[in-house]
Amino acid sequence: MTHQPKYKLASRQWKGNDTVIDVRGCQIGGDELFLIAGPCAVESEEQIDEIASFISNLGIKFLRGGAYKPRTSPYNFQGLEKEGLKLLKQVSNRYNLGIITEVMDLSLLDTVYPYTDILQIGSRNMKNYHFLKELGKTDKPIMLKRGMDATIEEWLLAAEYLLLGGNEKVILCERGIRTFDSSNRNTLDIAGIALAQQLSHLPVISDPSQATGNRELIGAASKASIAGGADGLMIEVHNNPKDALSDGPQSLYLNQLEDLLPDFEKIATAMGKTCSWAKQPEIINA
Amino acid sequence: MTHQPKYKLASRQWKGNDTVIDVRGCQIGGDELFLIAGPCAVESEEQIDEIASFISNLGIKFLRGGAYKPRTSPYNFQGLEKEGLKLLKQVSNRYNLGIITEVMDLSLLDTVYPYTDILQIGSRNMKNYHFLKELGKTDKPIMLKRGMDATIEEWLLAAEYLLLGGNEKVILCERGIRTFDSSNRNTLDIAGIALAQQLSHLPVISDPSQATGNRELIGAASKASIAGGADGLMIEVHNNPKDALSDGPQSLYLNQLEDLLPDFEKIATAMGKTCSWAKQPEIINA
Amino acid sequence: MTHQPKYKLASRQWKGNDTVIDVRGCQIGGDELFLIAGPCAVESEEQIDEIASFISNLGIKFLRGGAYKPRTSPYNFQGLEKEGLKLLKQVSNRYNLGIITEVMDLSLLDTVYPYTDILQIGSRNMKNYHFLKELGKTDKPIMLKRGMDATIEEWLLAAEYLLLGGNEKVILCERGIRTFDSSNRNTLDIAGIALAQQLSHLPVISDPSQATGNRELIGAASKASIAGGADGLMIEVHNNPKDALSDGPQSLYLNQLEDLLPDFEKIATAMGKTCSWAKQPEIINA
Amino acid sequence: MTHQPKYKLASRQWKGNDTVIDVRGCQIGGDELFLIAGPCAVESEEQIDEIASFISNLGIKFLRGGAYKPRTSPYNFQGLEKEGLKLLKQVSNRYNLGIITEVMDLSLLDTVYPYTDILQIGSRNMKNYHFLKELGKTDKPIMLKRGMDATIEEWLLAAEYLLLGGNEKVILCERGIRTFDSSNRNTLDIAGIALAQQLSHLPVISDPSQATGNRELIGAASKASIAGGADGLMIEVHNNPKDALSDGPQSLYLNQLEDLLPDFEKIATAMGKTCSWAKQPEIINA
Repeated sequence: MTHQPKYKLASRQWKGNDTVIDVRGCQIGGDELFLIAGPCAVESEEQIDEIASFISNLGIKFLRGGAYKPRTSPYNFQGLEKEGLKLLKQVSNRYNLGIITEVMDLSLLDTVYPYTDILQIGSRNMKNYHFLKELGKTDKPIMLKRGMDATIEEWLLAAEYLLLGGNEKVILCERGIRTFDSSNRNTLDIAGIALAQQLSHLPVISDPSQATGNRELIGAASKASIAGGADGLMIEVHNNPKDALSDGPQSLYLNQLEDLLPDFEKIATAMGKTCSWAKQPEIINA
Repeated sequence: MTHQPKYKLASRQWKGNDTVIDVRGCQIGGDELFLIAGPCAVESEEQIDEIASFISNLGIKFLRGGAYKPRTSPYNFQGLEKEGLKLLKQVSNRYNLGIITEVMDLSLLDTVYPYTDILQIGSRNMKNYHFLKELGKTDKPIMLKRGMDATIEEWLLAAEYLLLGGNEKVILCERGIRTFDSSNRNTLDIAGIALAQQLSHLPVISDPSQATGNRELIGAASKASIAGGADGLMIEVHNNPKDALSDGPQSLYLNQLEDLLPDFEKIATAMGKTCSWAKQPEIINA
Repeated sequence: MTHQPKYKLASRQWKGNDTVIDVRGCQIGGDELFLIAGPCAVESEEQIDEIASFISNLGIKFLRGGAYKPRTSPYNFQGLEKEGLKLLKQVSNRYNLGIITEVMDLSLLDTVYPYTDILQIGSRNMKNYHFLKELGKTDKPIMLKRGMDATIEEWLLAAEYLLLGGNEKVILCERGIRTFDSSNRNTLDIAGIALAQQLSHLPVISDPSQATGNRELIGAASKASIAGGADGLMIEVHNNPKDALSDGPQSLYLNQLEDLLPDFEKIATAMGKTCSWAKQPEIINA
Repeated sequence: MTHQPKYKLASRQWKGNDTVIDVRGCQIGGDELFLIAGPCAVESEEQIDEIASFISNLGIKFLRGGAYKPRTSPYNFQGLEKEGLKLLKQVSNRYNLGIITEVMDLSLLDTVYPYTDILQIGSRNMKNYHFLKELGKTDKPIMLKRGMDATIEEWLLAAEYLLLGGNEKVILCERGIRTFDSSNRNTLDIAGIALAQQLSHLPVISDPSQATGNRELIGAASKASIAGGADGLMIEVHNNPKDALSDGPQSLYLNQLEDLLPDFEKIATAMGKTCSWAKQPEIINA
């Protein structure tokens, strides 16, 4: 393989202190554990309202929800697209929730941009370097999912593309890598989170839903992520997982999420962290 | 995992006979072994001219060469971009060579389109479904590289996205998958080529250069591909591999390529096939 | 693949309650977090004495140490063999420590048996079914390491071989699986621990040293394992890691281990568990 | 990871010329393509006789057949053991066939030794270094299967253990590695065969049956192996694959094997090789 210059701006050598990103009063990357919850995809007004209302009542500050969905099969539900974005904005206003949603293609950036607080780059796009260059020119926080076949170095080099564009608000997200064992949908690389944090100053959050593909393991994977030092969690939850149009098996029931939060808080406290959902809302400044 | 409807248009059930794609007089997918050669990237007028002239003299009908390069590091050579496309067109005209080059992003489609005979979708884009949908609306042949983390089913589902858009001229390209063993750059999935051909009517070619990352193994991997039933080969060759701006170690020297062709012909003959480079040029009809 | 009958004796369907194994007063599998520490290999009397003395002072009840070492290269240190076993017994008596060491081959079982409290089956032997059948006839607790290429089902089927032999004291040990990413030596399958515990009643401990191969990550991987629900930890520690004859880079310094224990206790407490090292010694009954 | 001295005796630096192993008049490793055929397991006198008779009539000189079978599940057929060995010897005498069968454990070496011409080390034992040391002291040819999780270097280091014991008649066998894609049972590492041959003077044969797990792909994988430079093939064939006690789906029907041989000969001829099955029997000298 040809020689690869390593990342620079993403490295601890470049910036020794942790990057802390402030979005709508949440601190991502510091002593606060960040939590995002929501469905895989926005499916209807009723669905997203019920979920948004529920998580808002739990104190959760950020809602996830796909409007454009990358699906392995063209015959599967592809998302509500623009209509899904509008529904996200509606519940964002109604429940004072931050929004994170995926920009699936550069041609969709202008469409998605006004509707989201954090731009999500999906794992399938982590190696789309033209896309990364353009996204790096934006000024909103970006969550860069690790490619399911990406090494830690490749992931940090992808972040470097974003940082070189001028956007310093990059959040890394580990979501499981593809291995020989399909017992779980992917293999959560828990030590990879710790390694990324040692090599880079950027915050790293964990997506236990994509990683396990199994709602019965999300609790354990989340707790492990907190204790392993992750700066946050992104968890799929649905008001009716059995009928979800995508990723139902890996979506928590609403009450399961509620039941897990006290455990998350205990582990976070043991780690010396506060929890984004367990504090009073602040004035929005992002 | 949620239920996945399988591919339909890409399947043998839909179309029992092999799809044969005619491009500039070459038959891709039939009893003719298709051969593409050229550098990883277009680097200069001198470089691409010397290579094009050489392969043309060998009878090879198609030239590869990247103008926009997906590179793991932002500090590596990213391609000559538009200037590279112009150089490809120039040698295409000068030596009567077909061109294949990658469309790295949807936003570059209009730029690349007039300069290429076959649109290449890189392995990093195989799961960019929005991109695939749009590429499926074009009318030029498309070479769809297998993602380095894609199963055969996911690959065929990606082809299904293209076919659903209306473009039936889809060529699959196996280029090695990522495994635990980095002895080779990737692991050429030779039986995966045969499996794809059993499941699908689409032609499947092999890229032994990306698969091995090692010029000393390209001969063996190419011969294995021919005997394993691949419909063609795409091989990296450079007039000066030691100073290549990308993928030098996996680029053949010009004379190495020349030396391999008689062996390829022997294996092809044993397989009952003719060779695209060993026939008289025909009138271009693609 | 031919039809595979699943495990039976290892399953939750066969035995709903957690198996708790009592060894020398430690409870493996219940509400107590089990801890094993020690060097990769026994190297000398001074080395093993210094380490044993240190961990004993920390309250740790079990010492690991290889006498016969499976090494990838025949030119690497292969262990002190019988002499190593004697040194283990000596410090076991001196510091009242339980011993766990590997049985590398069936022909070594009779040699190793009298010197160890727990028989360790290495990951390279997890699929040696003849070996497993014979080991299942012993009456000491067995720690079965997961093969680095074994699925969860294959791991539980290996345990089934042991259980069928009559030995019910089987402890599973996750030690990282082999994946495309060699950033870490292996990839700790944290969700695989949770999955194994859901499918089986057997206790599952974690080996963060083998999993990461990097002492700087052992703390994070250990804490993640505790919070993820592991029933124990096996950690490599050395009095002089820089000169260790094997696995130096993944061995903690003695003081690093000491510094980590309070953190482990905090997480364990948050998980509702006590710690094997933080309780008074009991009368030995195993 | 600790520093690993590389293999020496197994390397091309140690011995530049190909090692050619003569067994019962077959030359393994030279200009002759070696062929082994037979069932996964010996199941009955009728079964092994019918298969042995058939392959003998085709000119094939070596019969495979497991007497002790490593099975993932303890509830699957484990082999006829000693009785299976006797049946192998019987048909060996009756049809003048060489025998290759697996030594599953060191404790079975003395039992198996008199019944076989080549000692097979299964892929699950490739990293059992104590076992390798002892096997290296024998004087019969040894076929060392690559572990399904072994790198090329680890494979050659395993061979080094054998060579250091004094046995120079080591045959390597690639049988597919474990990857994320389970479309095929394993992934045949075709370029790994070529790489092993470049790094080592030892002969390398291919096992397309284990590699693909699918009889419909064995033809293509075999032809690819021949053209890729493999020194031989080991193919599973059964008189009644549908009722085979193990590996039925990857066993050829007898007539399928017969139909493939002419194709194999064509490819071998194109590679400048003769075929072990297409020559007159010689006086046995192994």
